[in-house]
Amino acid sequence: MAKLNDNYLKLKAGYLFPEIGRRVKAFSQANPDAKIIRLGIGDVTQPLAPAVLKAFHDAVEDLASKENFMGYGPEQGYEFLIDTLIEKSYKPLGVELKTSEIFISDGSKCDCANILDIFALDNKVAICDPVYPVYNDTNVMIGRTGEADEKGYYSGLTYLPCTEENGFTPAIPSEKVDIIYLCYPNNPTGAVASREDLKKWVDFALANDAVIFFDAAYEAFITEPGIPHSIYEIEGARRCAIEFRSFSKTAGFTGVRCALTVVPEELMADTGSGEKASLNKLWNRRQSTKFNGVSYPVQKAAAAVYSDEGWAQVKETIDYYMENARLIREGLQAAGLTVYGGVNAPYIWLKTPGGMSSWDFFDKLLSECHVVGTPGSGFGPSGEGFYRLSAFGDRQNVIEAIERIKNNLA
Amino acid sequence: MAKLNDNYLKLKAGYLFPEIGRRVKAFSQANPDAKIIRLGIGDVTQPLAPAVLKAFHDAVEDLASKENFMGYGPEQGYEFLIDTLIEKSYKPLGVELKTSEIFISDGSKCDCANILDIFALDNKVAICDPVYPVYNDTNVMIGRTGEADEKGYYSGLTYLPCTEENGFTPAIPSEKVDIIYLCYPNNPTGAVASREDLKKWVDFALANDAVIFFDAAYEAFITEPGIPHSIYEIEGARRCAIEFRSFSKTAGFTGVRCALTVVPEELMADTGSGEKASLNKLWNRRQSTKFNGVSYPVQKAAAAVYSDEGWAQVKETIDYYMENARLIREGLQAAGLTVYGGVNAPYIWLKTPGGMSSWDFFDKLLSECHVVGTPGSGFGPSGEGFYRLSAFGDRQNVIEAIERIKNNLA
Repeated sequence: MAKLNDNYLKLKAGYLFPEIGRRVKAFSQANPDAKIIRLGIGDVTQPLAPAVLKAFHDAVEDLASKENFMGYGPEQGYEFLIDTLIEKSYKPLGVELKTSEIFISDGSKCDCANILDIFALDNKVAICDPVYPVYNDTNVMIGRTGEADEKGYYSGLTYLPCTEENGFTPAIPSEKVDIIYLCYPNNPTGAVASREDLKKWVDFALANDAVIFFDAAYEAFITEPGIPHSIYEIEGARRCAIEFRSFSKTAGFTGVRCALTVVPEELMADTGSGEKASLNKLWNRRQSTKFNGVSYPVQKAAAAVYSDEGWAQVKETIDYYMENARLIREGLQAAGLTVYGGVNAPYIWLKTPGGMSSWDFFDKLLSECHVVGTPGSGFGPSGEGFYRLSAFGDRQNVIEAIERIKNNLA
Repeated sequence: MAKLNDNYLKLKAGYLFPEIGRRVKAFSQANPDAKIIRLGIGDVTQPLAPAVLKAFHDAVEDLASKENFMGYGPEQGYEFLIDTLIEKSYKPLGVELKTSEIFISDGSKCDCANILDIFALDNKVAICDPVYPVYNDTNVMIGRTGEADEKGYYSGLTYLPCTEENGFTPAIPSEKVDIIYLCYPNNPTGAVASREDLKKWVDFALANDAVIFFDAAYEAFITEPGIPHSIYEIEGARRCAIEFRSFSKTAGFTGVRCALTVVPEELMADTGSGEKASLNKLWNRRQSTKFNGVSYPVQKAAAAVYSDEGWAQVKETIDYYMENARLIREGLQAAGLTVYGGVNAPYIWLKTPGGMSSWDFFDKLLSECHVVGTPGSGFGPSGEGFYRLSAFGDRQNVIEAIERIKNNLA
């Protein structure tokens, strides 16, 4: 008698974004003429960079001839892409990585979910609250938790509240934890970590033999100098951190699919018999056995992001989105709202007016302004009373959305 | 103190194909002038079909403009591809599927590994021997087994020997099992299952509330009429089987990455509390949370495989590979070898001459003929004394490889 994984039944609701999709669909079916502006899911809207498109086409064309045809690639990714990342993305930060330390994948969502495969179930895990729901849900699915309480906290996980009071910067946990998820620039709050903030985490991890999962998916949106783009800019992080990065937001690859995960060779974890073993080797084995590499033309397109021409074009789009962020932030502030983020991150985290609940505010903006954002409570209990807007829209839509919200709240 | 997943340490050796890669690399470094012909890993060699290339380019070009840009797609895959598969690939077999029952992914290797996520750990699992190593290794990695014995069998798994004596058709297990992996046409033996064979498995699964994982990655290579291409051609299979299919071999997508998994809505498994729940819903939740869909241009290219023009071109390449299979099979038979497969499958499973071990024969063909195949023992203990050749080579290479082997064995 086949038995299913009961842990899935502990999951309280649908994944956040499908739920938003359902509400928007219902509204638009009832109001077919409403021009809905979506600043919710954080999906990009601007075309790929011309240099990236050219490399993509050229690589598709390689598949047209026997001579240039590419079949199975390395599960870890092609060296042409890995070495480009080492040279163009990490070296300028003063971070030295080896080819064997970067693993190319089809998405950070997959990687930060799949990374749990190589850890024992009895690790104590800490996540921020609010948080990218994937961190929480994948720990539930793998069986690390009990049921959720009425707030939505699952027993067995350590939650680190990120609130207005602590400037959305979680305190170092007082209890011992083995794995800590950090995301900077933060989704959903838009907060960033200074060098000193990250050093505290690295020191804590080294002192406790803990591992940090560092999600740097939004590092390209940092505009202020001095803020680390990689956790490996911090001394000692190679011995305690795995870093996730993505082309999704950086280069408009949400529909193209490419990401990378860094697992330094020095990074060790304990075996059941009290020895240390290399997590790099385990992740390599996991990827070799359960994954078959990223589409060849996609990897070629990704490498072109870091050509001089490609990066200039990609940077222009990043600047475009960050100008959106400024317009949203300042527009909402002018409307009297309390607003966070949007300076070094493409997300604006606003406090709902009058203590309205996140979903009530979502429904209000959907029905009255035809604007879709993301309810803060969807990211965790401490997100209640907040609402996330994404800066990835088209400029005219962003301007119109903010006007509608300003008029509605006036 | 972070603890790693100790189950990984039970894995005996590197994954089969990386090990082959290491031996070939060592040989070619020592013998830089040797012209090595690779008929090992089963990677395709012929270009993509022109209609597929055109759709691929067109979809890349969609990403060049704001108007046609595609960001995040559905995690389950685009309906344009799913509905094409339902109409063009399943309906002609008399199999009716719903859009919600097909999940597009980036590879069958991922899917047949990840599917274990939604099942409880205490299911009793049966796999064939020899077998695609991923089935075995992923069960070890997830913690379903103890250590391997000296033969290479892991305690806790039920192995179903497929031998010359039983025509490479495993017997229905005498003990109760909950999950059974079947692969037809078979990798590595090239054996196929008749309708009657499959009916026995479906009846067994229904009688035991077991689930069959049916790997049909090679269905497009069936040349003889009457052999099922899908397990859903068998009455009752919708209530007991998950089917995996791939574009990798069918359409030359090993470097492009696209596959599909079918989870019928009627398919149930037991919860811990003795109720039944839908595996389709669990897989949907798994994919929504841990996966972000397949690259949009890749899905467009995949859909073009089943256009009239695309399929005619794709079929021509399949026929080309199956003509290779015939040349290999008949050439080796002429050399006095005992040979299986190669009629409805792109793999030839040959008995090593004089009782030579699989790896010895591998090393002999590598060093004396500069031909790379796959040692049968790499697929499991019952593969010892066999050797797999793939028909996916270029024609001239196939002819030359067979000539070299014939001359060597003469």
